[in-house]
Amino acid sequence: MGGKLLPAAFAGSPPLSQVATSAAHGEDSPYFAGWKAYDENPYDAVANPDGVIQMGLAENQVSFDLLEGYLREHPEAAGWGAGATSFRDNALFQDYHGLKSFRTAMASFMEKVRGGKARFDPDRIVLTAGATAANELLTFILADPGDALLIPTPYYPGFDRDLRWRTGVNIVPVHCDSANGFQVTAAALQAAYDEAAAAGVRVRGVLITNPSNPLGTTVKRRALEDILDFVARNNIHLISDEIYSGSVFAAPDLVSVAELVESRARRGDGEGIAGRVHIVYSLSKDLGLPGFRVGVVYSYNDAVVTTARRMSSFTLVSSQTQKTLAAMLSDEAFAESYIRTNRDRLRERHDHVVAGLARAGVPCLRGNAGLFVWMDMRRLLGDGEATVAGELRLWDKMLHEVKLNISPGSSCHCSEPGWFRVCFANMSLATLDLALARISRFMDRWNKATSQQEQHY
Amino acid sequence: MGGKLLPAAFAGSPPLSQVATSAAHGEDSPYFAGWKAYDENPYDAVANPDGVIQMGLAENQVSFDLLEGYLREHPEAAGWGAGATSFRDNALFQDYHGLKSFRTAMASFMEKVRGGKARFDPDRIVLTAGATAANELLTFILADPGDALLIPTPYYPGFDRDLRWRTGVNIVPVHCDSANGFQVTAAALQAAYDEAAAAGVRVRGVLITNPSNPLGTTVKRRALEDILDFVARNNIHLISDEIYSGSVFAAPDLVSVAELVESRARRGDGEGIAGRVHIVYSLSKDLGLPGFRVGVVYSYNDAVVTTARRMSSFTLVSSQTQKTLAAMLSDEAFAESYIRTNRDRLRERHDHVVAGLARAGVPCLRGNAGLFVWMDMRRLLGDGEATVAGELRLWDKMLHEVKLNISPGSSCHCSEPGWFRVCFANMSLATLDLALARISRFMDRWNKATSQQEQHY
Repeated sequence: MGGKLLPAAFAGSPPLSQVATSAAHGEDSPYFAGWKAYDENPYDAVANPDGVIQMGLAENQVSFDLLEGYLREHPEAAGWGAGATSFRDNALFQDYHGLKSFRTAMASFMEKVRGGKARFDPDRIVLTAGATAANELLTFILADPGDALLIPTPYYPGFDRDLRWRTGVNIVPVHCDSANGFQVTAAALQAAYDEAAAAGVRVRGVLITNPSNPLGTTVKRRALEDILDFVARNNIHLISDEIYSGSVFAAPDLVSVAELVESRARRGDGEGIAGRVHIVYSLSKDLGLPGFRVGVVYSYNDAVVTTARRMSSFTLVSSQTQKTLAAMLSDEAFAESYIRTNRDRLRERHDHVVAGLARAGVPCLRGNAGLFVWMDMRRLLGDGEATVAGELRLWDKMLHEVKLNISPGSSCHCSEPGWFRVCFANMSLATLDLALARISRFMDRWNKATSQQEQHY
Repeated sequence: MGGKLLPAAFAGSPPLSQVATSAAHGEDSPYFAGWKAYDENPYDAVANPDGVIQMGLAENQVSFDLLEGYLREHPEAAGWGAGATSFRDNALFQDYHGLKSFRTAMASFMEKVRGGKARFDPDRIVLTAGATAANELLTFILADPGDALLIPTPYYPGFDRDLRWRTGVNIVPVHCDSANGFQVTAAALQAAYDEAAAAGVRVRGVLITNPSNPLGTTVKRRALEDILDFVARNNIHLISDEIYSGSVFAAPDLVSVAELVESRARRGDGEGIAGRVHIVYSLSKDLGLPGFRVGVVYSYNDAVVTTARRMSSFTLVSSQTQKTLAAMLSDEAFAESYIRTNRDRLRERHDHVVAGLARAGVPCLRGNAGLFVWMDMRRLLGDGEATVAGELRLWDKMLHEVKLNISPGSSCHCSEPGWFRVCFANMSLATLDLALARISRFMDRWNKATSQQEQHY
């Protein structure tokens, strides 16, 4: 069965589309190259102790025991048990509105994650098979081929695929830098907008990630107000990707755009604001369930909700999974306890990594959210090496000598060379400590080499 | 929670994309209008015995007891039970290759469905969240905006959305008619191709559904050979949508394009054939699991497999669902018994409907597959009424007087007015009998009215 019956390649195959043959899927970038290097030589405490440790994967493994505990105590959430008729209804459920019970549970969870500071209407929740699909779907709805979205840098490398590949839409980077902790400014937004306009490209919206991946920080209230004013002034849309909103573990608290939309509406100056704001959410990060493929588009704009719902036919969530998670998330006590405990554990992990790196002499951007730190290795780039090429040489050394797969800032379009994203929640504490020890040894060698070099002068 | 905090519409919202504002989602067609009429007044034996009976939904409800039985006997397939660690691995599994165990089980199931007459390589199986996504994904890969796919008529109304909406690709109908049982001919293919060429439209492929929805028939071997020759001659692709391949319940047997690809390869004249052939499959129809969102792209072309896999990021299948179905379908005895029993039951249903309609004086196209019959009401269209308008007047009468939602042939782009698709597997036998009784009474009234009319002359 499944044998190689036919030749692997065919001489006379007809051509494929431009989308198929474009490189916009991004898999040839260092971001994915690092993953491949890890796949070829993965660290294992027993079988391969000198292997590559995967620190390029923003995965949350610190709170699985809570989900497992819930499923042990509530076998009916996942199984079908005696109520066999529910299987029938569930297997047949293909209404692209999604299970009402699940949308209600999602709305409630999104409110809890924001400490009750914003409200969500289950009827505005459109389900998609992950945030990847949610972001693409919004791009299809808000922009035409050739148009652009503005995105503050550094940003998640996957956006180059998700927003551009099949839509034909462009990304115009909004350059942020370390001087103000990479916060977006009105001036940077305007500069990017003007640059696009000068090139004859029509800007249809701004996309922010809040909390930011890769920075591990939240967008400050002032910056968020500026962004809202900017999109209103230019009559464009705002997508706020808030897939790490439940992973804010330290002050300052998350300010969700949902909160500002509501407060402007209360002040009476919300007219023309809400209809341009669209939020993306997912359970892949905050609940650690990427395999279950649950994404959300939440829009305050009726036409966007209607269109997104129709479009979600291409990317529906399994009703089996909706049923399981509806049970889990509508258990208020469980949901609240999960959010609290998960945050505590992430904070602990984060503080542990930051302290370990500090001992090794490596600073990080001060973070309060996410599953990663934004590590500052700028001083390791030698004279004339403060370039993308220099950064990639250091990255290559980290990957092949230090045996850590971390993500170079340039893969996130960061405008300052020398920053790296380091994930800390996808491994055991023991593995994390080994990774920190490897960095520490690397820094010792570097310090020694540097001081020897200095003695030469 | 979830209150209507904000106004429903916003004066100053920025414009949406052309895709968002196009009507290519097709929801304003009679096909969907009939669904809405059903939703507003659904038949229920007790609560609403005069309501509309839904015969416009190609859903398989005749074999649920088999799936339910399996899940009762194998609770570990859906639940997590004692092996709590498997939950962890499963929840995290986001590899877009899909679970190897599930792809292997799918390949084996696809072979069983074809009576072992074709083999499938698990490594060529790309999973998507339903066949809707699979068809769109192949269109993105094979054609550029403005290009066209040729599709024999009548065809599934959803294709107008799935293949066109977000891709910008066109559909050029290949007109088939009742003279030869709506089989595709080389002449009709060539005529459609020439028509497109004359209009300056580049044809990139042919899409067939085999077995056909809405016809309920399989494509004859001779017609399939002609189609293969046609795509080879014109150096274009062939998509064979075989989502009803497990629902062939009477002679002649299905001839899958997979069988022809293999036999041509064995004969040595497969060069240039396999690389242009792509098969779509799904578990929504044959297994009756539309809610679980499991679709498949199977291609003999390596570049298409690689690209489709990357593109499947937008439409992955829940790993929870993959796990459950991997267990179910890799149980060889269960899978074989399911396929056999399901076929027997579909044949029984089909024969029952055909006999009931015959007693009422309504013929059908002779069918051997699917969850529907292709009902011939041409003689009910009066003089000068053999038009789409006449067909839609009859359809409206069927919907609002007879209270049956059936699909008019024109919604499937049928070139002969007076044909209707009637689904028979999405309801109980009692409901089906009531529907047949309603048709019978309607025909009695029509016969009486017709004979009175004739007496007037």
